[in-house]
Amino acid sequence: MNIYGTLFRISTFGESHGPAIGVVIDGCPAGLEINESFIQTELTRRKPGQSKITTQRKESDTFKILSGVFEGKSTGTPIALFIENEDQRSKDYSHIQHTYRPSHADFTYDAKYGFRDYRGGGRSSARETAARVAAGAIAKLLLKTVGVEISAFVSQVGDLKAPHYTQLNLSKTEDNIVRCPDASVAEKMIALIDEVRLSRDTVGGIVTCVIKNTPVGLGEPVFDKLHAELGKAMLSINAVKGFEYGSGFEGVRLRGSQHNDEFYNEGGKIRTKTNHSGGIQGGISNGEDIYFNVAFKPVATIMKDQYTVDKDGNETTVSGKGRHDPCVVPRAVPIVEAMAALVLADFYLRAKSSRLS
Amino acid sequence: MNIYGTLFRISTFGESHGPAIGVVIDGCPAGLEINESFIQTELTRRKPGQSKITTQRKESDTFKILSGVFEGKSTGTPIALFIENEDQRSKDYSHIQHTYRPSHADFTYDAKYGFRDYRGGGRSSARETAARVAAGAIAKLLLKTVGVEISAFVSQVGDLKAPHYTQLNLSKTEDNIVRCPDASVAEKMIALIDEVRLSRDTVGGIVTCVIKNTPVGLGEPVFDKLHAELGKAMLSINAVKGFEYGSGFEGVRLRGSQHNDEFYNEGGKIRTKTNHSGGIQGGISNGEDIYFNVAFKPVATIMKDQYTVDKDGNETTVSGKGRHDPCVVPRAVPIVEAMAALVLADFYLRAKSSRLS
Amino acid sequence: MNIYGTLFRISTFGESHGPAIGVVIDGCPAGLEINESFIQTELTRRKPGQSKITTQRKESDTFKILSGVFEGKSTGTPIALFIENEDQRSKDYSHIQHTYRPSHADFTYDAKYGFRDYRGGGRSSARETAARVAAGAIAKLLLKTVGVEISAFVSQVGDLKAPHYTQLNLSKTEDNIVRCPDASVAEKMIALIDEVRLSRDTVGGIVTCVIKNTPVGLGEPVFDKLHAELGKAMLSINAVKGFEYGSGFEGVRLRGSQHNDEFYNEGGKIRTKTNHSGGIQGGISNGEDIYFNVAFKPVATIMKDQYTVDKDGNETTVSGKGRHDPCVVPRAVPIVEAMAALVLADFYLRAKSSRLS
Amino acid sequence: MNIYGTLFRISTFGESHGPAIGVVIDGCPAGLEINESFIQTELTRRKPGQSKITTQRKESDTFKILSGVFEGKSTGTPIALFIENEDQRSKDYSHIQHTYRPSHADFTYDAKYGFRDYRGGGRSSARETAARVAAGAIAKLLLKTVGVEISAFVSQVGDLKAPHYTQLNLSKTEDNIVRCPDASVAEKMIALIDEVRLSRDTVGGIVTCVIKNTPVGLGEPVFDKLHAELGKAMLSINAVKGFEYGSGFEGVRLRGSQHNDEFYNEGGKIRTKTNHSGGIQGGISNGEDIYFNVAFKPVATIMKDQYTVDKDGNETTVSGKGRHDPCVVPRAVPIVEAMAALVLADFYLRAKSSRLS
Repeated sequence: MNIYGTLFRISTFGESHGPAIGVVIDGCPAGLEINESFIQTELTRRKPGQSKITTQRKESDTFKILSGVFEGKSTGTPIALFIENEDQRSKDYSHIQHTYRPSHADFTYDAKYGFRDYRGGGRSSARETAARVAAGAIAKLLLKTVGVEISAFVSQVGDLKAPHYTQLNLSKTEDNIVRCPDASVAEKMIALIDEVRLSRDTVGGIVTCVIKNTPVGLGEPVFDKLHAELGKAMLSINAVKGFEYGSGFEGVRLRGSQHNDEFYNEGGKIRTKTNHSGGIQGGISNGEDIYFNVAFKPVATIMKDQYTVDKDGNETTVSGKGRHDPCVVPRAVPIVEAMAALVLADFYLRAKSSRLS
Repeated sequence: MNIYGTLFRISTFGESHGPAIGVVIDGCPAGLEINESFIQTELTRRKPGQSKITTQRKESDTFKILSGVFEGKSTGTPIALFIENEDQRSKDYSHIQHTYRPSHADFTYDAKYGFRDYRGGGRSSARETAARVAAGAIAKLLLKTVGVEISAFVSQVGDLKAPHYTQLNLSKTEDNIVRCPDASVAEKMIALIDEVRLSRDTVGGIVTCVIKNTPVGLGEPVFDKLHAELGKAMLSINAVKGFEYGSGFEGVRLRGSQHNDEFYNEGGKIRTKTNHSGGIQGGISNGEDIYFNVAFKPVATIMKDQYTVDKDGNETTVSGKGRHDPCVVPRAVPIVEAMAALVLADFYLRAKSSRLS
Repeated sequence: MNIYGTLFRISTFGESHGPAIGVVIDGCPAGLEINESFIQTELTRRKPGQSKITTQRKESDTFKILSGVFEGKSTGTPIALFIENEDQRSKDYSHIQHTYRPSHADFTYDAKYGFRDYRGGGRSSARETAARVAAGAIAKLLLKTVGVEISAFVSQVGDLKAPHYTQLNLSKTEDNIVRCPDASVAEKMIALIDEVRLSRDTVGGIVTCVIKNTPVGLGEPVFDKLHAELGKAMLSINAVKGFEYGSGFEGVRLRGSQHNDEFYNEGGKIRTKTNHSGGIQGGISNGEDIYFNVAFKPVATIMKDQYTVDKDGNETTVSGKGRHDPCVVPRAVPIVEAMAALVLADFYLRAKSSRLS
Repeated sequence: MNIYGTLFRISTFGESHGPAIGVVIDGCPAGLEINESFIQTELTRRKPGQSKITTQRKESDTFKILSGVFEGKSTGTPIALFIENEDQRSKDYSHIQHTYRPSHADFTYDAKYGFRDYRGGGRSSARETAARVAAGAIAKLLLKTVGVEISAFVSQVGDLKAPHYTQLNLSKTEDNIVRCPDASVAEKMIALIDEVRLSRDTVGGIVTCVIKNTPVGLGEPVFDKLHAELGKAMLSINAVKGFEYGSGFEGVRLRGSQHNDEFYNEGGKIRTKTNHSGGIQGGISNGEDIYFNVAFKPVATIMKDQYTVDKDGNETTVSGKGRHDPCVVPRAVPIVEAMAALVLADFYLRAKSSRLS
């Protein structure tokens, strides 16, 4: 399924080396100012070739709006965003055409569909996430009208960890190429990624996302809990292996008396003293910061020979060619934000019918 | 949204202290033998009062099939399962009627809906999961026709951890009341839960789920990746704070060369030497074991006074009454299995149209 | 699919001779007063045995609310309505167990599902519509809060036609058993139905539905046009063969200059002079009366021998047993209204996100 | 909602005078040969300017496939089809920018969305149907693999009617510009349309569609009956006012004994002697011909002055400019076929999970 969302719905398309990728957004309310330069900024944060620690594929990732915007505003009809693939020159893919790269989707796509577009990974390429970022930018514009702010950053690379988000200045995330707001940790992370790259290997990491000013009441019982949908959205991003929100996996070690977030009255507003709940209780936002961690595995394409089989089952070896991301998390930051924005925009619209006005 | 699934769809209803809870299953293929005693067994695994380490609420959780089954088989029309609430006697709820229990859904439900059924938590009570288990039992029956086996167990309580699943005999899970297949760890877990219970507190834990014999090819790119939907399904269970599959959060520390699962040919079948992928590549099952961890926070209801506010914002205290689960994971085991079964049954049906026959 | 609607969603279940039928309503906004006697009134309008021109099956069609209502109001969680089947005594169904009744669903259900619940038609029985009427009653309660009024009536039986709705007093619909507000036409219709019944035959008819005070702006381009969804809803009712709105099939004979509805300003409100559009333009309500016709075929069960085959293809004959409706339209009136209410309630909620507030 | 279908899903976008229109098809099974010249043939049947009785807008309606097809076959991933608007030169739209054309969607779009893209009707223009035809062509290719044949034709223009489809040779539909397979009736229809055009007026008509060789068992009880979904699909086409299948509105006049379709055994195949059911019983295909009528109103744009109001409520007049279709039905034939194909393709895939294999 390449469609996502209930009321704010996106439908994405495109392969890594086809003519174009894109997205159709259905359900964006009319009257939203569509700031095109903001959309471009978001795409640029994700695009390849932005720094020495990312893949050097050449894509400007410029987009065109084909519909749904008139005189600078959304009209309520589908907004189609279109991004041409520039780097689609005929390459030599013979090494992967018949061979299954370890921990890629080559084998499973063949098994499911009978064959696959093997050029650059086809639909399973992370190139697909550019469409998510474009759509997420519009979701962010919608959310900004009610004050919601979404900030993701790199909180871990390999064993290197940044401090807890409450001890960071999130406005500094874009100050370095690894997108970690702690400058000294960032420096180490960059050094680690560079070292891994030189050893022709890859490394994993964690992106943390913080959402401020979420209106109280977003999220739907029982299956569409806010964190359940956030989890699905994050886990749908290539290379993601885990999701936790609030106290997450660490929370299991605590006692209820330590973990519970007591309520208090702050000048007429009901708030919690602590926030192990991660801003979500019973699947519904309570107005506190929403925060969660997204675990990314090391990129599967490495520049070393690995044992594998071809599609006829013959044993062989394969190695990456060209240049790939040695670590995916710096470029994953805007993708995580985009998916978070898509989830929140959808729940924001859905909440409009929670009760009789 | 109280509806879940695309082709194998469930619609659940019911509050903790209303007359009944239940589920309507739409899309179960015709001709499936509906083994009622199996459904009852599953419900009994989840029901309260089953051991000294669970809540003592009295519910037999017996069900009635209202439709969709004829002469012992599914007819292809909706299967409605109905469970009467026995323990719905009028209790004294005055302590929570106007007061927000910390880390419960009281405040958010009020904020979202304007008021709430406060009796026993209403719809936000984990009682709702009985309907999931009933539906999941039917999903399991469907999956058994193609050999899929789903086994969950308690792998962690507080700081106490069981070994990796590959070192356990999963047939021993039901041998003890905590549902950990390692007898000596189980004993310690039971002691810990009992100690926590006596201190009027609660503790969290982790449920691990292992799925064997999944057909290759289940899961849909790009948003409905198999692990993304499993993640959503698990995160929709009450008290869940995190989800990871395969190498999960630990995997981020590895290098690609360590993490990649090399393919080999095992007597004509393409397999992987390791399984950091957790049986899923590119969002699609590859035939290896699917395994994942689900983190449960400590139960929010504790038998101690906690500071909080009432719905008018006045500061007050609240304490649990009656007897509650000191740790949710033993009873969560069948719930995790049920949600996994619902996800797989749905993808199994969806995969029927992946390619021209 | 036994689920209907996008935001105001119903999930129905139940067979003609199973223990019960019912419906789960998901998405009803919180805070709606649930007037139970109104729901009962609607069910009573549909129930069998209400007059000499309907089937004499004995059903009180009393319902029970199992969830989603607290202190008389909807809570925002699923509302489950449950109706026990009283007349489920073991009858002799040997004449239809193996034999395909002409123009019934016996053959197609067998072909699709491999077997069927043959008792009284099973799921394909019009008994299923009681669940729609119950859910529709709640949709009507929601719509009443914004002033929408839905009135259906019998406008044709066989060749007997009532005048155009604008020449009728719709408050008189319930004054006679055929539910035609024109008393003299009603008398002839009743005589015709009775005559048909005595000749052991059946006859078709048309139900017309008029919706007043619809807010401007309901309906979604391009596939979910208001009249398209109304059409689907009506065509999903048993025995319906056609749907037309506004000028309908007659409108094809007109010229554009005759058919177009010119706008004028009525005291500040934009209105149309004529209403060939039937209150819907471009799939969106314009505030004028919505009106449409629904064609019902003659009931398939007749008390005469008809040629047919059994499930092994042997030629045989079959005849109806017991007493059945000689004409379905009098009892179809509340069903048509219910489906119209479900459609409008859904679009009413969906319209809340048409534009930035 | 600009998304249609459950498993074979389309998402369309584009305005009449924006840069492009298009469609994303999600859920097309892998391995289908995508015959591009067939898609172009279908688009050419719909395109403007094809004869003297259609609008003279200049559009070649050539399409480009952006994704989802590799080496001539569908890959199972989304197929995006893109059609540039050629005739988007800046015209003078001042006459409709502020003025509501009678029986158009101008007023309702403004009322719903707050403003509208007024150029050529924006999203409410029938130009949007080109995307449906492109998607429908792919649905037809899928259906052809199981033998389904879909043929629509013009059966009525104004008062001029063609004989019943069973008396026509449907292979002659494309032999004349009005697409009526009866040559002599076609001639009269063309003369009528031409006369209406010269009088600066428009006229309505009916398109009949016949579907042969539908597999038995397509259609889903109870809300997604095959004819209910066909009805919705047809009613979602611009200018459609009514839908009837099988005996339709005429059927209401018959007695059950006349209307019922008796079964017989034709060489081992169960068939019906008559086909008032229109190939669908209980919402499920029975293998006989499916046939239905779709009523189109006269085109709303006429070349005469009509009274209306502007958006501030001032009374004024408006008249059509340029050249428009004097009758929509000739060009509607491929649109009706396309929507029928989309419905059947979806049900064909859905039926794959009706029963245990």
